[in-house]
Amino acid sequence: MEKKVPYRFYLTEDQMPTQWYNLRADMKEKPEPLINPATMKPVTADDLTPIFCDELVKQELDNDTRYFDIPEEVLEYYKVFRPSPLIRAYNLEKALDTPAKIYFKFEGNNTSGSHKLNSAIAQAYYAKEQGISHLTTETGAGQWGTALSEACAYYDIDLTVYMVKSSYEQKPFRKSIMNVFKANVIPSPSNTTEVGRMILERDPNTSGSLGCAISEAVEKAVNTPNSRYSLGSALNQVLLHQSIIGLESKKAMELLDEYPDIIIGCAGGGSNLGGLIAPFMQDKLLGKANPRVIAVEPASCPTLTRGKYAYDYCDTGKVTPLAKMYTLGGDFIPSADHSGGLRFHGMNSILSKLYHDGLMEAIAVKQTEVFEAATYFARLESILPAPESSHAIYAAIEEAKKCKETGEAKTILFGLTGTGYFDLKAYESFLDQTMVDNIPTDEELKCGFDHLPKIPGIQ
Amino acid sequence: MEKKVPYRFYLTEDQMPTQWYNLRADMKEKPEPLINPATMKPVTADDLTPIFCDELVKQELDNDTRYFDIPEEVLEYYKVFRPSPLIRAYNLEKALDTPAKIYFKFEGNNTSGSHKLNSAIAQAYYAKEQGISHLTTETGAGQWGTALSEACAYYDIDLTVYMVKSSYEQKPFRKSIMNVFKANVIPSPSNTTEVGRMILERDPNTSGSLGCAISEAVEKAVNTPNSRYSLGSALNQVLLHQSIIGLESKKAMELLDEYPDIIIGCAGGGSNLGGLIAPFMQDKLLGKANPRVIAVEPASCPTLTRGKYAYDYCDTGKVTPLAKMYTLGGDFIPSADHSGGLRFHGMNSILSKLYHDGLMEAIAVKQTEVFEAATYFARLESILPAPESSHAIYAAIEEAKKCKETGEAKTILFGLTGTGYFDLKAYESFLDQTMVDNIPTDEELKCGFDHLPKIPGIQ
Repeated sequence: MEKKVPYRFYLTEDQMPTQWYNLRADMKEKPEPLINPATMKPVTADDLTPIFCDELVKQELDNDTRYFDIPEEVLEYYKVFRPSPLIRAYNLEKALDTPAKIYFKFEGNNTSGSHKLNSAIAQAYYAKEQGISHLTTETGAGQWGTALSEACAYYDIDLTVYMVKSSYEQKPFRKSIMNVFKANVIPSPSNTTEVGRMILERDPNTSGSLGCAISEAVEKAVNTPNSRYSLGSALNQVLLHQSIIGLESKKAMELLDEYPDIIIGCAGGGSNLGGLIAPFMQDKLLGKANPRVIAVEPASCPTLTRGKYAYDYCDTGKVTPLAKMYTLGGDFIPSADHSGGLRFHGMNSILSKLYHDGLMEAIAVKQTEVFEAATYFARLESILPAPESSHAIYAAIEEAKKCKETGEAKTILFGLTGTGYFDLKAYESFLDQTMVDNIPTDEELKCGFDHLPKIPGIQ
Repeated sequence: MEKKVPYRFYLTEDQMPTQWYNLRADMKEKPEPLINPATMKPVTADDLTPIFCDELVKQELDNDTRYFDIPEEVLEYYKVFRPSPLIRAYNLEKALDTPAKIYFKFEGNNTSGSHKLNSAIAQAYYAKEQGISHLTTETGAGQWGTALSEACAYYDIDLTVYMVKSSYEQKPFRKSIMNVFKANVIPSPSNTTEVGRMILERDPNTSGSLGCAISEAVEKAVNTPNSRYSLGSALNQVLLHQSIIGLESKKAMELLDEYPDIIIGCAGGGSNLGGLIAPFMQDKLLGKANPRVIAVEPASCPTLTRGKYAYDYCDTGKVTPLAKMYTLGGDFIPSADHSGGLRFHGMNSILSKLYHDGLMEAIAVKQTEVFEAATYFARLESILPAPESSHAIYAAIEEAKKCKETGEAKTILFGLTGTGYFDLKAYESFLDQTMVDNIPTDEELKCGFDHLPKIPGIQ
C-alpha cells in the first residue's frame, strides 16, 4: 500500500538548508546589470554601499557564486519560525475532485504573517554586523514593514518605515503591530524628505505609492548618519534570501518522493516567486527536469503580461539605480479599487530575464476571481490566505481543474506566502459584492511607457 | 555533548494522540454534578439533549470513562492544522539569563487563531453526525466564534453567533472573518430573543456580556428546529477535547526526555488550562509526578483567587444548569477598561474542584503587567501573543526569574493559546500608556455574591 503523505510536513532542524542558492550562477544568459543613472554605466559596489550594507551589495552584484552560507546567527533565528510546513491540500483536492496532487509551502505562520521575514532577518543581521544603527524602508500592504520591524527589534536597530499613505489609513493595525516592534512608522509621502515634500506640493491629496515611499526611504537613509536602506522585494539579494522557501520545499518533496510538474507563485516584485522556484529553475536550467513555472499577477498591475522589458527606475523619485525589467513605468499606480496587493510597477530582473527567455509563464487575474478562490480555499483548508497569496491559489485551482478534464495526476506546488488577517476589509468588500475589477486600458498603460527613461546607446 | 532540543518540535502524524483523556476518571473526589434549576436535582442526559448534541451530553456527564476515541473524521481534520508545535523559548531564556528551561505549546497557528478549533471541530462533527443543521453559540473576544465558524463551514452546518456587543463594535474584523466562514453574527443583546429583548429593555445602552450572549444562544437553539447549542469553554466536554493540547505536549516532552516542573495556563472558562494540564494532572493524581500547576487569571476578573466556590448559573438569563464552581456571580461584568480577555464569571467545575482541593495554584495579574510581558515576549520570540495567552507568559517569566535567583534549572511549560492580531487596539493602549488597571473592590464583588442562587439543602 502506498504510504500516505502527511497533511503537514516539516523538515527537522538538521534537514534545514544551511546555504542560500543564487539562481544567477546557473543562468547562461545573465540578467542585465543595474545602471547608475548618474554615469549611465553599470553600477559598482561603490555606487551602492552608501545605500545598502556592504555584504548585501556583494550579494546584489554577484552573478557567479552558486551558494552563500547562511550566517550562524541567521540560521538560529530561522529556527525560531522555520521550517515552514509543506502542506498537502487534501481537502481542496477532494472538493475539486481532481486527480492532481496539490502541495503548498505555507510561509504565513510567523507574526509578520508572510515570507518577508526570511529576508528581513538577513538584512538586519548584516546591518548589525556592520555596526549600522538605523535602517529605513518602505511598506505597501505592510507585510515587509512588519517583518523588518520584527527583525530590527530583535537586533536592536532603529527602524523608520515609510508606509504608503492609503495603506497607513486603511490598515491602522499594521502600524500598531510595527509599533509593538518599536518601529517609527510615517505615512508617505511625508514632509520628512525632500522628495516627499515635492510630491505633496504637486498633489497634496495623493494617497501615495510604493515608488514614492521607496524614494523617501532611500533619501532618509542617505541623509542619516550610520544608516542604510532596506528593501523587501525586487532585489537580487532578496531573491537569494528567499531561496530558503524553494530549498525547503524541494528537500521536503524529495523526502516525500515527489517532484512538482507545475510550480505557481504570486508575482509582485518577485521575492516569493523567485525564492520558491529557485532550485526547481536550477534543474530546468541544467536540463535535469522541466517543470512548468507560472507567475500570477493582478490584472490591475499586469507587469509581466502587459509591461515592457526595459530599463527603469525602481522608484518614483528616480533616486534608485536603473534595472532592466518588465515594467509598467515608475508613474504607474494601480486603481484605488485594487486591494489584492502586488502593486509594484516593476519585477526583479532575474525573473524578468527568465520570463523574457521563455523559461517561465505568466498570467494576470482579476481580484474578484482571486477572492473567490481565497474564500473557497479558506473554508476547505482552514487558512485565511493573504490576497497576494490567493493569486497563486487561483492558478493552482485552475490547473487542478484542467487535470480533472484530462485525467492527468499532475503534482502542483504553489507558494502560500501569507495570511489575510489585515486584509479583512478587502474580504468584506468581496463578500458584500462591492468589490470591482479595474483593469488599466492600453491608453493608461501607454502613459507609463512614454515616460520610461532614455539611456544613450541602450534604449 | 547534550543533544540540543530544537526550537520547534512537531510530532509526526503517527505520533499524534488518537484518544482524548477524561481527567474526571482519575479524580477520587469527583466534581459536583450539574443541577437542573427546574427540579433542583442533578441533571440527566434527558435534561441536556434538547440543548447539546447527544454524544456531547454523554461526554459532559461521564465521570468514569478514561479515554474517548477521537472520531476518524475529527482526527483527519486535526491533521489539517495540528500537531501544534512545542517550542523551546531559547531567546526568552537568554534575555532573562535564567537557568530555567522554558517550553510553550503554541496553539495559535491556525486561522481561528487559537486552541478553540480543537473543540469546535469535534462539536461540529457530532452535530453533523446527528443530522443537526444549525448551531448557535456566543463569542466574547471572538476566538471561539471564529473557530466554530470554520468548523461549521467545513461540515456545512448553519451557524448563528451571538457576539458580545462591545466586542462586536470594537473588533469589526472578527465579524468579517466569521463571515468568510459563512456565519451569521448578531451583536448581543439583540431583539432576536426574549432574554435579549428583556435585557435591552432594562438597559438599552448595555455593552453586553458573555453571560447574556450565552442566554440568547441557548434560547435560539431551543426555539429553532433541528438546532443545538455549542459552547467553547467551561464545559467538561470542552476540556475533554482540549486534552489534545496536553497529550501532545506530554508526548513531545517525553520524546525530548523532558518533564515539566511547573505547568502554567491562562484561565478564563478553563478550556485551555484544563486541556493543557490534563495528562500531567493525571500523573499527579496517580502519584507518578508532582508538578506545580498554576492558573493565571486577570485581576479584573479574579474568579479563582477572589471568587466563591458555589453553585451558580453559567449565564445571565439563568437558562443554563447550575454548576458548582468558583464564581463571581452571573451579574459580574469586568470593567469596560479590561481588554485582556478571560472575562467569564465562572470556571469549569473540574478545575474548580482541583483548585478547591489544593491540586492547583492560582494567581491574578494586572493587564498592564500582562501587556508588558506580551510585548517583551513578542520582540524575543517573534510571536504576537493574544492577551489571554499573555497571562501565562507573565507567570512563566516570573517563575523563570525566581529560578535565576535560586539557581534552579526548572523546566517550565506554558500554554500559548493564540495570537493577538485582533487585539491591536489593546496593544496600542498599552504602548501609548492609556491602558489602566481596574480591579474590582470587595464591595463590588459582594454584590455578585449576594445574588448567588439559593438551593434548598445545598446552599
